[in-house]
Amino acid sequence: MKTMKGFCMLFMLYLCLLDSGRMGKVLVWPVDFSHWINLKVILEELHHRGHEITVLVPSQSLLIDHTKVPYNVEILQLSVTKETFVEELNTLLYEATFELSKLSWWETQIKLASIGRKFLLTIKRVCDSAVTNKELLSRLQAAKFDVCIADPLSFCGELVAELLNIPFIYTFRFFYGNVIERLCAGLPMPSSYVPGVTSRLTDQMTFIQRLENWLLYTVSDMIYSYYVFPEWDEYYSKVLGKPTTICEIMGKADMWLFRSNWDFEFPQPYLPNTEFVGGLHCKPAKPLPKVLWRYTGKKPETLGANTRLYKWIPQNDLLGHPKTRAFITHCGTNGIYEAIYHGVPMVGIPMFGDQHDNVARMKAKGAAVEVDLQRMTSADLLNALKAVINNPSYKENAMKLSRIHHDQPVKPLDRAVFWVEFVMRHKGAKHLRPAFHDLTWYQHHSLDVIGFLLACVATVAFLVTKCCLLFCWKFGKPAKKKKRE
Amino acid sequence: MKTMKGFCMLFMLYLCLLDSGRMGKVLVWPVDFSHWINLKVILEELHHRGHEITVLVPSQSLLIDHTKVPYNVEILQLSVTKETFVEELNTLLYEATFELSKLSWWETQIKLASIGRKFLLTIKRVCDSAVTNKELLSRLQAAKFDVCIADPLSFCGELVAELLNIPFIYTFRFFYGNVIERLCAGLPMPSSYVPGVTSRLTDQMTFIQRLENWLLYTVSDMIYSYYVFPEWDEYYSKVLGKPTTICEIMGKADMWLFRSNWDFEFPQPYLPNTEFVGGLHCKPAKPLPKVLWRYTGKKPETLGANTRLYKWIPQNDLLGHPKTRAFITHCGTNGIYEAIYHGVPMVGIPMFGDQHDNVARMKAKGAAVEVDLQRMTSADLLNALKAVINNPSYKENAMKLSRIHHDQPVKPLDRAVFWVEFVMRHKGAKHLRPAFHDLTWYQHHSLDVIGFLLACVATVAFLVTKCCLLFCWKFGKPAKKKKRE
Repeated sequence: MKTMKGFCMLFMLYLCLLDSGRMGKVLVWPVDFSHWINLKVILEELHHRGHEITVLVPSQSLLIDHTKVPYNVEILQLSVTKETFVEELNTLLYEATFELSKLSWWETQIKLASIGRKFLLTIKRVCDSAVTNKELLSRLQAAKFDVCIADPLSFCGELVAELLNIPFIYTFRFFYGNVIERLCAGLPMPSSYVPGVTSRLTDQMTFIQRLENWLLYTVSDMIYSYYVFPEWDEYYSKVLGKPTTICEIMGKADMWLFRSNWDFEFPQPYLPNTEFVGGLHCKPAKPLPKVLWRYTGKKPETLGANTRLYKWIPQNDLLGHPKTRAFITHCGTNGIYEAIYHGVPMVGIPMFGDQHDNVARMKAKGAAVEVDLQRMTSADLLNALKAVINNPSYKENAMKLSRIHHDQPVKPLDRAVFWVEFVMRHKGAKHLRPAFHDLTWYQHHSLDVIGFLLACVATVAFLVTKCCLLFCWKFGKPAKKKKRE
Repeated sequence: MKTMKGFCMLFMLYLCLLDSGRMGKVLVWPVDFSHWINLKVILEELHHRGHEITVLVPSQSLLIDHTKVPYNVEILQLSVTKETFVEELNTLLYEATFELSKLSWWETQIKLASIGRKFLLTIKRVCDSAVTNKELLSRLQAAKFDVCIADPLSFCGELVAELLNIPFIYTFRFFYGNVIERLCAGLPMPSSYVPGVTSRLTDQMTFIQRLENWLLYTVSDMIYSYYVFPEWDEYYSKVLGKPTTICEIMGKADMWLFRSNWDFEFPQPYLPNTEFVGGLHCKPAKPLPKVLWRYTGKKPETLGANTRLYKWIPQNDLLGHPKTRAFITHCGTNGIYEAIYHGVPMVGIPMFGDQHDNVARMKAKGAAVEVDLQRMTSADLLNALKAVINNPSYKENAMKLSRIHHDQPVKPLDRAVFWVEFVMRHKGAKHLRPAFHDLTWYQHHSLDVIGFLLACVATVAFLVTKCCLLFCWKFGKPAKKKKRE
C-alpha cells in the first residue's frame, strides 16, 4: 500500500514537471531587415528554452537567409527575384528618404500613404504565396502550433494564424500615423500629448503642433480606412470565407510586444495586452578583437589619420567600449537602444520611417544632436560631434537613460519570452483583451450617447420655445390690442 | 603600486555594495481598516529589506494601533476621541449601506457626494493636525525622508510630501466616480467600456448602461470639481503659500500602485506610472490549528450541527484549505483577492463602496453569485451557496482566475516594493510622467483644436455663402426684372 502511494506521488511529480517544462511549437511570420535582427533574439531564447520554432521565409528575403536560419523553415516561393525585390525596395526607400522632404504637409501625407500602399502590395505577393498554398496550410495545420509570432507592419501573419486557429502575438515598432495602434489595437493616444509617427513632434506641443498632430491622426485614419484597408478587408474576407476586416483580425492578437519603452518613448497610455520590450536585443559588450577593422577598396587620400574604414563592425561591442565618446547613427530603433544600453550620446542623421521621430525623442531627452541628411555640411557634422563630446550634459543624459533602462524588475527579453510562453500555456490571454474590440468607433467615443443627450436637450428646448410662443401668442395678443385701443 | 590598485578596486566595490544596498527612509500617510491591512504587507517587506519606516498615526485610529506598530511612529494628536470617530464613521457607513438603496439614480449621486464630503471633513482634522504642527514638520524635514507612501482616498499625504519636498507614491483602490483616477492621475477611462466605481456595471454595456456610465463620470466630475474640491484647493493653496489645486498636487505622484489587476479588474487603459499590484497581501495557507474555533456568548438554539461560531478565524488559511468549497463575503477587495489566490468561488453580499462593483466583476468572470443584503431571505442565501458549490463552472472559473493570478513574471508585492525602491534610488520616476499633466482639460481632449477647425470651416462657409448671395443679387436681379418686363 505504501509503495503504491509513493508511486502515485512520484507520477504526479513527473506530470507536474512534464507540464511546467512542456515544449511549445512556435510559428513565425517575420519581417526582413532590422525587424528580423530584433525578432531573432526572441527566437534564440525560445529555442534555448526548448521550444520548436518554424519560420515562414519568403524566397525573396534578404537578411533572412533560409539556408542559415537554425530552425525549421518553410520557404514561401515567390516569382519575384531578390534583385527585383531590392530594386522595388530601393525605389520606395528613395521616395521615403529624399522625395518626401520636398513636399508640403498635405503632399507628404498622400505620398506616405502611397508608399505604404506600394509596400503592402509587395507584402500581398508573400501573403498570396502562403494562403493559396493548400499543401503548406495543411502541413502547418497538422503541426499543431501553439502560437504564431507576427509583425503587423507586414500584414498576413494574423491571417495565417486565423486560418490555423491558433493564438498570435505581435512584435511591433510602429505603423504610419499610428493607425493600427489606435484603430486595431485600441491604444488610447490623445493627439494632444502623444505625437504620431512621422510627425517629428515631442510630447510638449504648441497649439499649432497639436493641430498638426490632430490632423495627422485624422488624415491617416481617413487614408487608411478609405484608401488602403478596403482592399485588404476584401482579401481577408475572401480568404476566410466570411465578412471581416483586417483590423478585426489584427485586434485578435493576444499580446502586442512593442519594441520601445519609457527610457526611449514619451509616456503614453497603453493597455493590459501591450508590453514594452524595447532594447531586448541589447547585451553587455564583448572585448574588441585586437585587429578590429576590415579594409576593402581604396582608402580616400583626404581621410584623416584618426579615421578608419570598415565593411562591418561589432556595433554593440564598440558602443560598450569605455573609450567610445559618441555614436553617429541613422536613428534606427535597434541602434538607438544599443546606445541607451551603453549610455553613449548620439549624433542622429535620420533617413525615413520612425527615424526622425526616434531622434526627436533622444533630442527631447537631451541625449542627442540632430543633423539634416539633405542639407548637412561637414561643418554641421563636426559641430554636432563636438557638442555631443564636449558638452557633458549629453553624456549625463545618455547615462541617465542607461540607468533607467537597466533598472527594470524583469529584463525586456525575459518579459517578451514570458508572454509568448504565457499565451502557449493558457492558449491565449483573453483576460487582457479590452472590451474596446466589441464597440464601433462612435460607441467607443460615446458619440451615440452624446448625440442622444443633445437630441433630448434640443427636443426639450424646442418644446419649451414652442410653448412659450404659444403662450405669448394666446395671452400677449389681446394685451397688445388693448393697448392700441 | 599593485597594492594601491587593489585597494582602489576594493573601495569601489565597497561603494557599489553600499549604494546597491543603501537603506532608505520611508514616510507613511496611512488609511485605516482594510487599507492598512494591505499597506502593512508592503511596509513589512520594506522593513525586512532594511529600510527605515516612519508612520504618521492619527490618535483616533482604530486598526492602526500606535502602541503595536513596529516602526517609528509620529502620533497626530486630535481632539476627537476614538468613540466619537467610530460614531461618525458608523453614521456614514449606515448611510452608504442602507440609505442609498432607497434613492433614485440622481439622489444617489448627490448622497454619495455628501457622504464623500463628510468623510473628507474627518480627514481634514487629521490633515490640520499635521500641517499646522510646525515642530512635527521640522522634525520630519530634518529626518530627510527618501519617499512618502500615501493613499489618495485620505487627502493630505501628498500635501505633507510637497511640504517636505520629497517624492511620493500612492497605494490606491478607487475614488468615487473614478474622479481622481481620471482628472488627477490622467488615466484614460472611456465611459463606453470602463465602468465607473459605484456603477455596478461591467465592461459589456447596453446603450442605456453606457448612457448611465457617461452620466456617472460627468456628474461626478461636476460634483467634485465644483462642490468638493474647491475648499481643498483653497486649503492646499493656503498651506503651500501658492495658488494650486489638490488635483495638481496629487498629479505629482511618481507612482500609483493600484490594488487590483486583470485577474480581478476588466482590462482598461493605464499609464506608465501606474502599476497594478492587486493581491499583494495573499500568501500560501498555513495548516489550520487543531482546535480552530473560538466561542463566546450563547449559541443560538436553532443553529445547525454543522455550523460553528467564531470571534476570529484565520481567513487566508481557511480559504487555502483543500476542503473549502465556497466563500461568503462582503466583497472587500482584500477578501476577494484571497479567494482568487486560492481559487475559491464566492457568494457575494456587498455592502458599500466598491463592494458592489467587486462582485459585479466576479459575477462577470463566472466565479461568484450575488445576494442582495437588504432583500435576502435564508432561502436566497442557501440557493446561492448550493449554486456555487454544486455547479462546477464556478469552481472552474475561480481556479482559472487563480492560475492567471499566480502566472505573473513578478509577484505583486515584489513589484510594489520595486517601485518604492526605484523612486528612492532615482529620487522620483519623472520619466514615467505623462505630458497630460501639462495640459488643461480642453487641451487634453483637443477641444481647442476642434473648435478652431470648426470656426475655420464656419468662416469659410459664411464667406462662400455671402459671395454666392452677392453674386446672385448682382447678376440675378436684372434677369428677374427682364422677365417681368
